[in-house]
Amino acid sequence: MPLAWLQHPVRSIDSAARDAALARQQVLTKPRGALGTLEDLAVTLASLQGKPCPTLARVHVAVFAADHGIAEAGVSAYPQAVTGEMVRNFAAGGAAISVLARELGATLDVVHLGTVNDPGALPGVRRDWIAPASANFLHAAAMDDAQLAQALAAGRNSVAAAAQAGAELFVGGEMGIGNTTAATALACALIDASPNEIAGAGTGLDAAGIRHKADIVAQAVAYHRAFAHDPLETLRRLGGFEIAALCGAYIAAAQHGVAVLVDGFIASVAALAATAIRPECRPWLLFAHRSAEIGHARVLDALAAKPLLDLGLRLGEGSGAAVAVPLLRLACALHAGMATFAEAGVTDKD
Amino acid sequence: MPLAWLQHPVRSIDSAARDAALARQQVLTKPRGALGTLEDLAVTLASLQGKPCPTLARVHVAVFAADHGIAEAGVSAYPQAVTGEMVRNFAAGGAAISVLARELGATLDVVHLGTVNDPGALPGVRRDWIAPASANFLHAAAMDDAQLAQALAAGRNSVAAAAQAGAELFVGGEMGIGNTTAATALACALIDASPNEIAGAGTGLDAAGIRHKADIVAQAVAYHRAFAHDPLETLRRLGGFEIAALCGAYIAAAQHGVAVLVDGFIASVAALAATAIRPECRPWLLFAHRSAEIGHARVLDALAAKPLLDLGLRLGEGSGAAVAVPLLRLACALHAGMATFAEAGVTDKD
Repeated sequence: MPLAWLQHPVRSIDSAARDAALARQQVLTKPRGALGTLEDLAVTLASLQGKPCPTLARVHVAVFAADHGIAEAGVSAYPQAVTGEMVRNFAAGGAAISVLARELGATLDVVHLGTVNDPGALPGVRRDWIAPASANFLHAAAMDDAQLAQALAAGRNSVAAAAQAGAELFVGGEMGIGNTTAATALACALIDASPNEIAGAGTGLDAAGIRHKADIVAQAVAYHRAFAHDPLETLRRLGGFEIAALCGAYIAAAQHGVAVLVDGFIASVAALAATAIRPECRPWLLFAHRSAEIGHARVLDALAAKPLLDLGLRLGEGSGAAVAVPLLRLACALHAGMATFAEAGVTDKD
Repeated sequence: MPLAWLQHPVRSIDSAARDAALARQQVLTKPRGALGTLEDLAVTLASLQGKPCPTLARVHVAVFAADHGIAEAGVSAYPQAVTGEMVRNFAAGGAAISVLARELGATLDVVHLGTVNDPGALPGVRRDWIAPASANFLHAAAMDDAQLAQALAAGRNSVAAAAQAGAELFVGGEMGIGNTTAATALACALIDASPNEIAGAGTGLDAAGIRHKADIVAQAVAYHRAFAHDPLETLRRLGGFEIAALCGAYIAAAQHGVAVLVDGFIASVAALAATAIRPECRPWLLFAHRSAEIGHARVLDALAAKPLLDLGLRLGEGSGAAVAVPLLRLACALHAGMATFAEAGVTDKD
């Protein structure tokens, strides 16, 4: 039963901590509600961390890298070799998420699940090898059962290590040439959307490239349609190693009681799968930003998610979530550090 | 000629630095444009700082506090005593902007321009006293010529000190019960908008309160209408000490070559006045957020400004701009710290 853990209990949110945080927000020296979403964030984090004044000193960033068989259908603007090259770049500190993790003082866990262009063992990279790539899901399942289980466990293991180290926030990222196509197919199957609505430019397709991608996705979704009622089976058939790892990480984070900040399009599709498999994990997922990738808006709607930022980001790697971390930290700092009306001797409205 | 300085030359932006930054963005290890607005920010800051890799270590936050004669028209949800009480709170470190400045490692310059409830001399507060309050602009000019000059100079002096200390970013904030009413009147006169479009809840008016506020603004704008062609005179008639100080600060920042991050509704109206008086200062103004205050959207449109955040903030004090500072810092860090395709050995698209 390698997947039995998916059904383990999810941590409940702490309504007493939430109420205490909400009460505190009402007496801080500002008009009630004047800090908008920052107030909501502090209250939500209080409810997830189980303490009236949440903190975010320790942030764990995990980036899962893997290649995709569907890349052979010509769905990406970049060659497949880039996935392996970027694993090296993550480790060397030159990728966007490397810079961001450094700036945030966050732990960066680079998890190499399999690439066609294998950079080999690298310092700073955790090798959790599944295969050089998932299968081309046009005419087969992307993963076999063992591969799916291994990918989900890779996400769970990263979260378990984070929880063990006292992480107060989990940020998951992904890298994999072709993975917006896998995410598009998975999203279309999970929310019964049209590939024309969801397929976007990814790393930089032109209009003809996007039409081709939508056509490929339509074929794949049709081929696997009979299984669309089963989200785990749909993940196995249309996902990819890193998408499944993110899905496993999100479910594990809810089980461990670690708040999650979800990145962009691909991460949100993984969240869609996670909430389809375990709806109880939804409260643990905060959403960082609205991606420039066209299908993200529809996926966010399906998740009833209101992301914090809308900056035209479309890089993945967890970069958009990392960029939003300071907002959460400032929300916590304001919540803990502002004076109350009574403490400051400021006259309240009533 | 106490206002002659307003016409001093504004620093030109550095197009060579901009071009160098733009070229660098094209070779960093990401699809071109994938970091969206963060790329634009790095390029814009490069053009303003005159160096291909901009930095934002030193941030100067100035909060200008003053009372408003128009408060006697019953336009605020809070009593006028709060302005002076908040000056004390800024200095004691309990206000939102105090917490944010501390978290950002920013200099906080609290400038007390005049309050009806005078807290007296306080450590951490610079006293630049003009009068207990501006005049009620329903039947008189809010400021006389000397008061306007002093308020504008208060802003200029804060910027001059910031520039002297090597500040790479200026954030201006304000505190003053009644100041959304002054800002609404000023905005209506400057962009010929209807008070019903611009008047909002401020610190928390109900619907009847907002109608009353719009009516007061309509009367004031009608009374001073003959001078609407002259932005400086309109500022004198409908502004307030802290709004004029922000206006002076923005013009001075452009003269000193210090980039500005503009806060919410009131700060944006001050920016509207600044750009009406000196259109050349516009490139120096970046806009942090879209406030929940209803009139802000129209003011941003008039400034052709696309703010970074939309988080339902409506506190003022410079708080929304402070919250956006990490985005600028991360944009700079990514720009400087990411590897190029060549450095990382990553295959480019072409």
